[in-house]
Amino acid sequence: MKDNILSGKEISAAVKEKLKLKTENLKKQGINPGLAVIIVGEDPASKVYVNNKKKTAESLGIYSEIYELPENTEQSELLKLVEALNKRDDINGILCQLPLPKHLNEKEVINKIDKNKDVDAFHPENVGKIMLGEPLFLPCTPAGVMEMLKYKNINIQGKHCVVVGRSNIVGKPMAMLLLKENGTVTVCHSKTENLKKICKSADILVAAVGRPLFITKDMVKKGAVVIDVGINRLKDGKLCGDVDFEKVCKKAEYITPVPGGVGVMTVTMLMQNTLKAAELQFNEKINEKKLKEAPKAKIKTEIKAKTESAKKAIKKAVTSAAKKQKTEAEKIKAKAKALASTKEKIKDKAKDKAKDKEKEKVEEIKTENQTESKNENS
Amino acid sequence: MKDNILSGKEISAAVKEKLKLKTENLKKQGINPGLAVIIVGEDPASKVYVNNKKKTAESLGIYSEIYELPENTEQSELLKLVEALNKRDDINGILCQLPLPKHLNEKEVINKIDKNKDVDAFHPENVGKIMLGEPLFLPCTPAGVMEMLKYKNINIQGKHCVVVGRSNIVGKPMAMLLLKENGTVTVCHSKTENLKKICKSADILVAAVGRPLFITKDMVKKGAVVIDVGINRLKDGKLCGDVDFEKVCKKAEYITPVPGGVGVMTVTMLMQNTLKAAELQFNEKINEKKLKEAPKAKIKTEIKAKTESAKKAIKKAVTSAAKKQKTEAEKIKAKAKALASTKEKIKDKAKDKAKDKEKEKVEEIKTENQTESKNENS
Repeated sequence: MKDNILSGKEISAAVKEKLKLKTENLKKQGINPGLAVIIVGEDPASKVYVNNKKKTAESLGIYSEIYELPENTEQSELLKLVEALNKRDDINGILCQLPLPKHLNEKEVINKIDKNKDVDAFHPENVGKIMLGEPLFLPCTPAGVMEMLKYKNINIQGKHCVVVGRSNIVGKPMAMLLLKENGTVTVCHSKTENLKKICKSADILVAAVGRPLFITKDMVKKGAVVIDVGINRLKDGKLCGDVDFEKVCKKAEYITPVPGGVGVMTVTMLMQNTLKAAELQFNEKINEKKLKEAPKAKIKTEIKAKTESAKKAIKKAVTSAAKKQKTEAEKIKAKAKALASTKEKIKDKAKDKAKDKEKEKVEEIKTENQTESKNENS
Repeated sequence: MKDNILSGKEISAAVKEKLKLKTENLKKQGINPGLAVIIVGEDPASKVYVNNKKKTAESLGIYSEIYELPENTEQSELLKLVEALNKRDDINGILCQLPLPKHLNEKEVINKIDKNKDVDAFHPENVGKIMLGEPLFLPCTPAGVMEMLKYKNINIQGKHCVVVGRSNIVGKPMAMLLLKENGTVTVCHSKTENLKKICKSADILVAAVGRPLFITKDMVKKGAVVIDVGINRLKDGKLCGDVDFEKVCKKAEYITPVPGGVGVMTVTMLMQNTLKAAELQFNEKINEKKLKEAPKAKIKTEIKAKTESAKKAIKKAVTSAAKKQKTEAEKIKAKAKALASTKEKIKDKAKDKAKDKEKEKVEEIKTENQTESKNENS
């Protein structure tokens, strides 16, 4: 293999090693990641993709369930399945393989998937978070591209990154991830004037057009990094990307092949999202439990506080009552004392009066005796 | 005024004329649009913006309420206010003037605003819808820019649109709106290498950096359209944009001034969103009513159907009973007839028997007479 090839197989193997370890660690904590994949109808490419997802999940120790629904499935049935999966604790990630048969409403199905189980990151709120630079889940294909760039330490900051294709699944989120890493990002598409010139100015060129051999040698700057997201099937049955690989690989500093390039990474990133979802939901449940118990704890604390304050109030009341009683008793004592003293005084007065009366009587008797003796003497 | 000036005053006046008419039409339908604006603290610029919003709402006949909360408002109080406004039927649009004082959590406040009342389009789900190309509400400043381009019939399709600045409020949503109109969009920022070269390649250059005179003459291609989103206050108190207006206006095909440019448009687009919110909520309520009444209508139909079928059953039963009665009566009649005829027959038989007996007696008498005459004769 040429040494400028960014091999999805090699890089995804390295990422998968880490994910396998992470899964084991999660399981040790009692977290068993689970992924549900829904496929409606018989599209052969979709079947291959779904099969890959199942195999990859198994290889990492992630539990997976595949729901193969018939082509004529009704919208309401599909929505009911999503609702049921939303409610299940053992399913952390849900994805519905697109495209759905034409009679079904994809948007409604995507919006129905629990935002925290939306491992494809297709729900509008998750898309919004990607644009705001705070992704809950990384969009799988663009995240796979970022892993490839990171793996080879390719500098993004300040570099001109040109994304050809503006799909909601690849082009736009790819632009946002490159922008978050401080790339200067240009998004081109079918209406772009001077496409060749713009592509040629790219330090990092991402092709996500869906047209075989669309990016030719003359559109690539020497030394550019070329990422090929396209997967096209040629008439002879062979798969090829959007880039004229054979010729472009001679100019590019790095280039991804098709197959064996970005596609392999996409599935790996889906697994990473599933593990993140499992962790997230586990932590959420712990928080919910805490929140549920929080009011109980709060009530307990409140009761304790109230009991304490009641105790204090009682103590205070008792003390104050005792004090009051004491004062009252002292008052009574004082009154009694005062009363006793008054009695004494009255007694004394009575004694004095009696003494006075006695004195008076003595005086009277003295006077009488004197008068008698006077009369006797006169 | 130079004829290459994109005047926000002029263009917003034209848009406001339409919005005024729309408000009148909504009111005729019984829809009274209402906007609530929350401002926390004393930031003078924020106060000016909020005042403008109130004035503009009034001038269009839109009901508005301003909540001026003190600097030390607690997060929980702010959230309670948002919740209360979410519940009110007479408030269709809610916005919280940013930035909030540092002790408050902006993200939590924005996420609390009802998505259908989020007229600033800051809620992650509304941001996601902008990125997906299906905006519920248009981001006000970028939408104002788009109105200006539309007003002068400036072609966007295929053109190179360079947005300098990647904020969540202006840069990123601006890129998405230009992309939706088929522009080739480049987002530049502080880390961009070769900024001058990239800016000079722009057919439409949008400056949203927040640095006075950042875009100089040498960064602009002759004939480019230059949109200045910056509002900076100079040391002398004067307002100026991000573009060196005096010099750049000589090169540009069109250019927006500051003040009197994009800023005026932003407020106008906020009013457009408020009207959309009012319409949306009105229609939603009608749909809800229909959904609520649907079961009632179903029951009514069922009752009617049951009544009808009961009526039919009764009629059928009556008819069948009458028929049965008739048959019974006929049977009785027939029996009576048969009885009468039997009586007649018995009568006839009795008559015949009497006749026979008479005959017999006559014969006996005859025979007796004959015997007597024989004896007389013998």
